[in-house]
Amino acid sequence: MDIWMRFMSGDGGIVFGRVEGGYLHEYASLDQRVPTGEVLSTRALTPLAPCAPGKIVALWNNYHALAAKLDKPVPAHPLFLLKSAGSVIGDGATIRRPASYAGKIVYEGELGIVIGRRCRDADLAEAAASIFGYTIVNDITAADLLNENPHFPQWCRAKGFDTFCGLGPAIVSGFDWQAGRVVTTLDGVERQNYPLADMVFSPAQQVSLISQDLTLEPGDVIACGTSLGVGSIKDGATVAVTIAGIGTLSNTLAARQDTGDATAAARAAANAA
Amino acid sequence: MDIWMRFMSGDGGIVFGRVEGGYLHEYASLDQRVPTGEVLSTRALTPLAPCAPGKIVALWNNYHALAAKLDKPVPAHPLFLLKSAGSVIGDGATIRRPASYAGKIVYEGELGIVIGRRCRDADLAEAAASIFGYTIVNDITAADLLNENPHFPQWCRAKGFDTFCGLGPAIVSGFDWQAGRVVTTLDGVERQNYPLADMVFSPAQQVSLISQDLTLEPGDVIACGTSLGVGSIKDGATVAVTIAGIGTLSNTLAARQDTGDATAAARAAANAA
Repeated sequence: MDIWMRFMSGDGGIVFGRVEGGYLHEYASLDQRVPTGEVLSTRALTPLAPCAPGKIVALWNNYHALAAKLDKPVPAHPLFLLKSAGSVIGDGATIRRPASYAGKIVYEGELGIVIGRRCRDADLAEAAASIFGYTIVNDITAADLLNENPHFPQWCRAKGFDTFCGLGPAIVSGFDWQAGRVVTTLDGVERQNYPLADMVFSPAQQVSLISQDLTLEPGDVIACGTSLGVGSIKDGATVAVTIAGIGTLSNTLAARQDTGDATAAARAAANAA
Repeated sequence: MDIWMRFMSGDGGIVFGRVEGGYLHEYASLDQRVPTGEVLSTRALTPLAPCAPGKIVALWNNYHALAAKLDKPVPAHPLFLLKSAGSVIGDGATIRRPASYAGKIVYEGELGIVIGRRCRDADLAEAAASIFGYTIVNDITAADLLNENPHFPQWCRAKGFDTFCGLGPAIVSGFDWQAGRVVTTLDGVERQNYPLADMVFSPAQQVSLISQDLTLEPGDVIACGTSLGVGSIKDGATVAVTIAGIGTLSNTLAARQDTGDATAAARAAANAA
């Protein structure tokens, strides 16, 4: 198992590499895994999300326990939406409530698959070989928007807001997902604790089947879906998602900011024009 | 009105700039609009999609005539999905049928808004100023997948396949959209001919309202939705979408390829594993 992280350095540059014993061994990039020879103390660096995905494929209904609870049949193909790349934040970053939205904001602790090389129409073996490693995702949703319009479910909008995709803290290559569990706490109280082995589509199956829909690129992330225990986050509360062997992804929903008036005015003007 | 295009040059490099009288006046990029001083004959260049969007926001139900035909109320906020960035093809490129999909493939001729600068929580004036120009979109859909699963409408999958977003041929800045019409032909027969003035949300309203959901970045594209006359494309047929003042975007759906068996086998293996 290797631990891969991305940081901002003191001069504002971005560095990526393998972390061992408090030091970053820099590599050229996620898909060009060539050491640059630079070794930096991680204490001088600011952690970022461990990759900058071009796309984030987020699965719905991928755990048997949740499918049973929702009384939905297990799907025959991964059911997914795309989260906007701009929604990504790293460990420790703040989730921002959209200025125009006062409703329920929901966490979902998930396993994230990080793609290591271009992958299209891949069979299972090629799909497995295309997985660079695993990370943790907090797939955040403005839940009241999802079915706000009865004629069009707004999955991409509800899950696509800036800061609505926690990602990190690290990518772990060689992680044995089959023995793993996702444990989510809200202000320290356990809310989710489910086994990854309960997945409907395994990571390699997801990559294989999704690669028949979309070409997957290095750094792309598949959020494997969540299971039981999803719930809402109050303003100011902290969600921590832990997968032993990967780490803990912790993000706090900012206390309500007083920016609602300006945005509401912009929105009203746009609607009226 | 200026015409902006992107090309592949003889050495495989990508050049972007303003086209006038058969010559490309190269610019640094879409958001850094600084001339490089290079002037190239477009005859030596291979046209590409005029930008490489990080995200493509595609609207549903944004024309009064279509809303009336579908008997749906006009929405209060733009209803959108995200098309994958990898779905983009330029004028003249071939639409490929997914190997695993034998169903109906549908064209939608649309106006495309190209963002010129980062835009978040923008009021109408800022939104209007953030529009770099306009292009043409053919928003292609594997229609039978949309409601294949009764529990989850697969918008992102059905519209996200590689080659399912025709974009081009040019971006025109200063284009007067209010007088424009979208004319779509299928193998030369007119199928769509609708006025842009029938839009529910104007381009500036779309940019303003969507910027309150997602930060829009330079090169991002908003596909404004389509109106009456959507239909299916037979294998081998050519769809041409024309907006006078922008140009014609023409793409052919490839004749059926004999690659179905290998992919079907990969799919079956992935499902069975």
